[in-house]
Amino acid sequence: MLSLCQRIFCGVCFGSLLLFGAPSLLGQTGRIVDLTYPFDENTIFWPTEPGFELEKGPAGMTDKGYYYAANRFRSAEHGGTHMDAPLHFFSSGESVDTVPLDRLMGDAALIDVASKCSSNSQYLIQVSDLTKWEERNHRRLDQTIVLFRTGFGKFWPDRERYLGTKERGKEAVAKLSFPGLDPKAARWLVEQRRIKAAGIDTASIDAGQSTLFSTHVILCEKGIPALENVANMDQLPEKGFTVIALPMKIKGGSGAPVRMIAIVPM
Amino acid sequence: MLSLCQRIFCGVCFGSLLLFGAPSLLGQTGRIVDLTYPFDENTIFWPTEPGFELEKGPAGMTDKGYYYAANRFRSAEHGGTHMDAPLHFFSSGESVDTVPLDRLMGDAALIDVASKCSSNSQYLIQVSDLTKWEERNHRRLDQTIVLFRTGFGKFWPDRERYLGTKERGKEAVAKLSFPGLDPKAARWLVEQRRIKAAGIDTASIDAGQSTLFSTHVILCEKGIPALENVANMDQLPEKGFTVIALPMKIKGGSGAPVRMIAIVPM
Repeated sequence: MLSLCQRIFCGVCFGSLLLFGAPSLLGQTGRIVDLTYPFDENTIFWPTEPGFELEKGPAGMTDKGYYYAANRFRSAEHGGTHMDAPLHFFSSGESVDTVPLDRLMGDAALIDVASKCSSNSQYLIQVSDLTKWEERNHRRLDQTIVLFRTGFGKFWPDRERYLGTKERGKEAVAKLSFPGLDPKAARWLVEQRRIKAAGIDTASIDAGQSTLFSTHVILCEKGIPALENVANMDQLPEKGFTVIALPMKIKGGSGAPVRMIAIVPM
Repeated sequence: MLSLCQRIFCGVCFGSLLLFGAPSLLGQTGRIVDLTYPFDENTIFWPTEPGFELEKGPAGMTDKGYYYAANRFRSAEHGGTHMDAPLHFFSSGESVDTVPLDRLMGDAALIDVASKCSSNSQYLIQVSDLTKWEERNHRRLDQTIVLFRTGFGKFWPDRERYLGTKERGKEAVAKLSFPGLDPKAARWLVEQRRIKAAGIDTASIDAGQSTLFSTHVILCEKGIPALENVANMDQLPEKGFTVIALPMKIKGGSGAPVRMIAIVPM
């Protein structure tokens, strides 16, 4: 039974711009889980991308007596823990700087299909995986940031095991092999539910063997951002936590590095 | 007088990892203020930096029938709305990927010195500006993200008015002219108070005419990140709001682009 305070909070949260999940705020204490991989020379990018490059600048004592360090860097929009803006696969979609921030903050759900993916590395997440979560948790995925845990995060940063190939270049794309969200399940999510965003612990919300990227297209057409290469999903419960995912504000960008965290009640 | 619910929440928030300010969660509704400038060709960087470069990639229909857009980009760590990690001016300081996330989320305070800066563009924010805020608001700045509003945000992205010079290169640095935090006030903040982070609506937490960057050094030595080129401070109240500032996770970085927001009760 809800306490007075809980009931007040449910009333406050629904329909407001705060949109933090009441459960994660009501815990006595919460822990912050960083769902982001660092950007460095080992960060995994698509085989056609050169990866993250840090251009080291000065780092040492100046002649004026103070220490100073500063660098520059170069990156693709889509690599490491990043966000696909709807513009990535939909010409009329929002660019990464204009995605509404309330889509990127709020109640989250973890759909854990790791056991299925461990026996089938090309597993496609099904509608039944979504409905089973709803039945088990007695709630719908509406207004939720939906995270898919394939278990492939444990392979990071081993390109061969994480992507299915360590080769690079255009020819390597056909050799990609990892699980993803079945386009039929993506269709169900946009037609039967109203989710805020989707996230996955692989390099792409479409499975590695996808050639038409239909899941991307379906989500992007409906303005749903996809969060990819999400880290540390093994530290999340399946419900009752809050996600905040704030992307670098690249004007007109099709995507961007994102710093993504979860707040999990203790 | 605090309601029962407010009192419960104060108890929950202090000492927990959630560290969201109770007032901003208790409002009936809240609005999200994006405190971040977009990264584009007009984004202001230090005169010695080349600025943000978007390397436009494909953007159009593929031969397989789906739309696709993706770009690459290049940037300095310190430009646009960004975070200085303690490593920027302190060799033993935390790099941007290791700054504790609970420093970057929570109750915030706005110290508004815009009227003083409008008559003195090189104004140095004083201890008295801090103590007056505390007296007026009947609370200390401990455990707060302290934002300084000089009013210079209204000049963005006009380099000449915002920085004091539109020139570029090493010679331009001596011509920089904008307000900043007096090193004596920085010293007071680290010795007399325990703040989480500091932010300002100029290009540097040290004033433009600084040559020793003592405020940076003082803050960095104590592990206090500085948020610079913070946008839209004119939309903030002086107290009772929450800030979340999540930087790009550059491994070993001295700083990074940050996506920074405020949640303001309505």
